[in-house]
Amino acid sequence: MMDARNASLVLDRPGAADASETGTHLDDLATPALVLDRDRMEANIARMRRQLAAHGVPLRPHLKTAKSIEVARALLGSNRGPATVSTLREAEQFASAGITDMIYAVGISADKLERAVALRRRGVDLALLLDSVEQVQLVAEKSRAAGVALPCWIEIDCDDHRGGLKSDDPEILAVARALDRQGVPLCGVLTHAGEAYNGTGGAEDLAAAAEQERRAAIAAAGMIRDAGLPCPGVSIGSTPTALFGQNFEGVSEVRAGVYVFFDLVMAGLGVCRPEDIAVSVLASVIGRRRDGKAIIDAGWMALSRDLGRSLRDGAPHYGAVCDLDGRALPGLAVVGVNQEHGIVGTIGAAGGPVPLEIGERVRILPNHACATSAQHERYHVVAGSRAVEAEWPRFNGW
Amino acid sequence: MMDARNASLVLDRPGAADASETGTHLDDLATPALVLDRDRMEANIARMRRQLAAHGVPLRPHLKTAKSIEVARALLGSNRGPATVSTLREAEQFASAGITDMIYAVGISADKLERAVALRRRGVDLALLLDSVEQVQLVAEKSRAAGVALPCWIEIDCDDHRGGLKSDDPEILAVARALDRQGVPLCGVLTHAGEAYNGTGGAEDLAAAAEQERRAAIAAAGMIRDAGLPCPGVSIGSTPTALFGQNFEGVSEVRAGVYVFFDLVMAGLGVCRPEDIAVSVLASVIGRRRDGKAIIDAGWMALSRDLGRSLRDGAPHYGAVCDLDGRALPGLAVVGVNQEHGIVGTIGAAGGPVPLEIGERVRILPNHACATSAQHERYHVVAGSRAVEAEWPRFNGW
Repeated sequence: MMDARNASLVLDRPGAADASETGTHLDDLATPALVLDRDRMEANIARMRRQLAAHGVPLRPHLKTAKSIEVARALLGSNRGPATVSTLREAEQFASAGITDMIYAVGISADKLERAVALRRRGVDLALLLDSVEQVQLVAEKSRAAGVALPCWIEIDCDDHRGGLKSDDPEILAVARALDRQGVPLCGVLTHAGEAYNGTGGAEDLAAAAEQERRAAIAAAGMIRDAGLPCPGVSIGSTPTALFGQNFEGVSEVRAGVYVFFDLVMAGLGVCRPEDIAVSVLASVIGRRRDGKAIIDAGWMALSRDLGRSLRDGAPHYGAVCDLDGRALPGLAVVGVNQEHGIVGTIGAAGGPVPLEIGERVRILPNHACATSAQHERYHVVAGSRAVEAEWPRFNGW
Repeated sequence: MMDARNASLVLDRPGAADASETGTHLDDLATPALVLDRDRMEANIARMRRQLAAHGVPLRPHLKTAKSIEVARALLGSNRGPATVSTLREAEQFASAGITDMIYAVGISADKLERAVALRRRGVDLALLLDSVEQVQLVAEKSRAAGVALPCWIEIDCDDHRGGLKSDDPEILAVARALDRQGVPLCGVLTHAGEAYNGTGGAEDLAAAAEQERRAAIAAAGMIRDAGLPCPGVSIGSTPTALFGQNFEGVSEVRAGVYVFFDLVMAGLGVCRPEDIAVSVLASVIGRRRDGKAIIDAGWMALSRDLGRSLRDGAPHYGAVCDLDGRALPGLAVVGVNQEHGIVGTIGAAGGPVPLEIGERVRILPNHACATSAQHERYHVVAGSRAVEAEWPRFNGW
């Protein structure tokens, strides 16, 4: 820490001999900057693949965390997909990179149908999501007017997290019948155990959340099938439930996204270890305060305002502090943020002045990888050394 | 609300006859989208100018809220500045638009000096900020090596908000002497009453915060001058203290930024009215929940995760809900956010189901205009009608 700049011995680690393509190192990269540890990312991807392969269920990665063509290629089993997206911008960007099997997993609205039609016309098998007869009507009208099929999934609410119909809601059948009557193809039912992020965590609770998610989807599919309508797909998933689920019977595919990078929320739930987190924000120490805290040049613009689980844990912060080589500096966190300033202080049992000097560099682990990554235009990719081996662009917007 | 789509009578308001340059209306713009009410923005700008003109003190607007050439032109007294920026990206973008008088008001670090030199060589009068002898050394070395002057302000901490030296800290003199010895021009002392955002608000408290800010800067400048060193500038400011300050004696300029748009934090402090807030996020209702809440297609990606003052107010939320014409829907707020989903519920005395229907459009007022605007690539500009009269690009990054 105090002597972090002498720690370049790490360059002797295996892999460090790889020449940097960009000629930059974490020691001289302009800060703040988003750093992606490729080794960790690949291990995270491999872990999810192993888990689902063991259960024989296909994976449909969610690309909203990454929003990067290069990360998508690492995530997907094939260049064509399957994939999940959260915006039509993602669908369009990934379609241009050759991905043709996607679910746009946010409830559809009228203003988005024209672009969905355009994607279908490009040969992209884009499926939509809805949970109301009003939306069926919108989709059916557009489909007829355009002469283009717009297949849909019905969203099921398995845990009161946000959208979807409860698995016992007869409205599920009303929506399925409306799709059938209007000639809109029904892909199946889709749910997401988002409340698993808000629980106490631990293997047992996460396995229970996974089973609740599976049962809700199966029940909804059963309601539709019992009425004599086809319901081919049963799509479930979230990173915690995908990794801790023990039974995937009746499930046709699993969606998950944040596992590609992991974050402090996932570590807090026991889903990963902090040392599995693949993205961090590189920052410079630009000030020292009388009260022993240090100031870095990464504020909410670089870290996001996401408090993750820290608020409920009684120690609100915006990220955990690591040294330049990604090793945790225990007890140090970003305890305050302004637009371009972060204030590093001690949390938990740690105390005393923050052992960081002006000019020193640190890496901040994110509470929420999706939110922190979204604040940046590119990943600076490292693997086993401080050399930046690549810059991978990312995109936001809708 | 239920009949918001019948409210197009608003098109009869003055200004509504202006033809839309883009041909789009808020009724059909793809959601989510950032809307800028030009009338409100111009009134906010005029209010700040009136206040500071009455006190005869120059204004140096902070452009970090807007990050837009068009908004900068509306804000600045002249095409050349003066202006304040929070990133070198801002300095470079605004320099390309002809702005030549800027302070980069975040403590300087080594990795940023090369670009600062490049801006100075382009003829931009860019000044830097520092509060330590270590930073003086860095700046002086770079300045000598490049043969380019790098004038600096010394940051003063007037309220324990983030960086800077306390106004009684003898280190101020050590920094000033180091600058003098090294031949680095000292512009003056600079402070920011950021804690004014975290107080109880109200005219009296804000005026007291303004006086504290002024006194801290004056004291620091006095310490330097008493030692026989020049300290030409005394730069203070924040939106609340600039608008409520009653005495600007000894102050050479005032910096402020968020007043251009205002937000719910400023309204909560009594600095503005909610109806002065010039930016909002246009969203579509994409779902209804059994519990009476509604789902919109604006989550944290469109609104940010900034809770503003709502957490301390005991009703945490991510923005207040208005109808499509920007009229408040009292008691409705975005009570939860996921990446692309917002959950609209009732807060305060209001109760019962949220009176919004699937397909309806709303506008969300931001807790923090800087943070919400930063989530978007452009402003959709309206003035007196739903017609979008212009799209103004904005930029992020460093």
